[in-house]
Amino acid sequence: ENANHLQAQRDSLTQTLQETETRNRVLEVQLTEVEHQLETSHLEQEAFRKNLKTLLEILDGKIFELTELRDNLAKLIECS
Amino acid sequence: ENANHLQAQRDSLTQTLQETETRNRVLEVQLTEVEHQLETSHLEQEAFRKNLKTLLEILDGKIFELTELRDNLAKLIECS
Amino acid sequence: ENANHLQAQRDSLTQTLQETETRNRVLEVQLTEVEHQLETSHLEQEAFRKNLKTLLEILDGKIFELTELRDNLAKLIECS
Amino acid sequence: ENANHLQAQRDSLTQTLQETETRNRVLEVQLTEVEHQLETSHLEQEAFRKNLKTLLEILDGKIFELTELRDNLAKLIECS
Repeated sequence: ENANHLQAQRDSLTQTLQETETRNRVLEVQLTEVEHQLETSHLEQEAFRKNLKTLLEILDGKIFELTELRDNLAKLIECS
Repeated sequence: ENANHLQAQRDSLTQTLQETETRNRVLEVQLTEVEHQLETSHLEQEAFRKNLKTLLEILDGKIFELTELRDNLAKLIECS
Repeated sequence: ENANHLQAQRDSLTQTLQETETRNRVLEVQLTEVEHQLETSHLEQEAFRKNLKTLLEILDGKIFELTELRDNLAKLIECS
Repeated sequence: ENANHLQAQRDSLTQTLQETETRNRVLEVQLTEVEHQLETSHLEQEAFRKNLKTLLEILDGKIFELTELRDNLAKLIECS
């Protein structure tokens, strides 16, 4: 009788353990996926920032060139 | 003897199950955290894009105003 | 005879003087006209320079505003 | 007596003619000078307009380049 009881406990534990391990694997897969999404998001953001920095440098150049144009116009007005 | 063997199995299973459940809780906490980070990242990116769109609209305005300036300069040159 | 000669001289001088005075009035009218054209030209150039100075100030404003835009873009990139 | 009178008239006319011819030469020199100033003024204005046209073309280029920058920024925001 005691042996029957212990066997039932063991079987129940075995089943619960299997379910818990299955849940574990599902969680691990989900975690890997979300971590991958986060890394991709960070890489995309980094690439985005890099492209924006390039545009910022081009904008700097354009402002510099407009300032040169402004100075040439000012000189022209002064000398006329 | 058989009862002793079953008891040892049950104890071993109980311990393994506890460890697995602990690991489960750790994974659930990690998953929640990473999902939160991903959501924060998306919200930040969205806010960033919104700010960039505002800058784009300001840039549109500046280009429009420079074009008006250009047209006024062209008219002045033509009429002089 | 001498009186006839003097009279002829006087009549010739009178005619030359009239022609010279006519040429004088023509020259004075021309001079007044050209001086007026020169003054008009200077006034137009002055008005033109004034309009150009206004455009130069507007260009200064646009360059300033583009520089503000550039700084806001730089801050946005740094903080992202 | 009549001859004396005619001689006096002739001398007076001769002097007036000389003065008028002197005034004539002065006016001709002045007219030449002012005409030269007017021509110089027109040539300077023409050179000035030509320089302004060059600046206008440079400004056109800068506006075109800022518009390209704007389009690249817009694409970047759309694709992020």
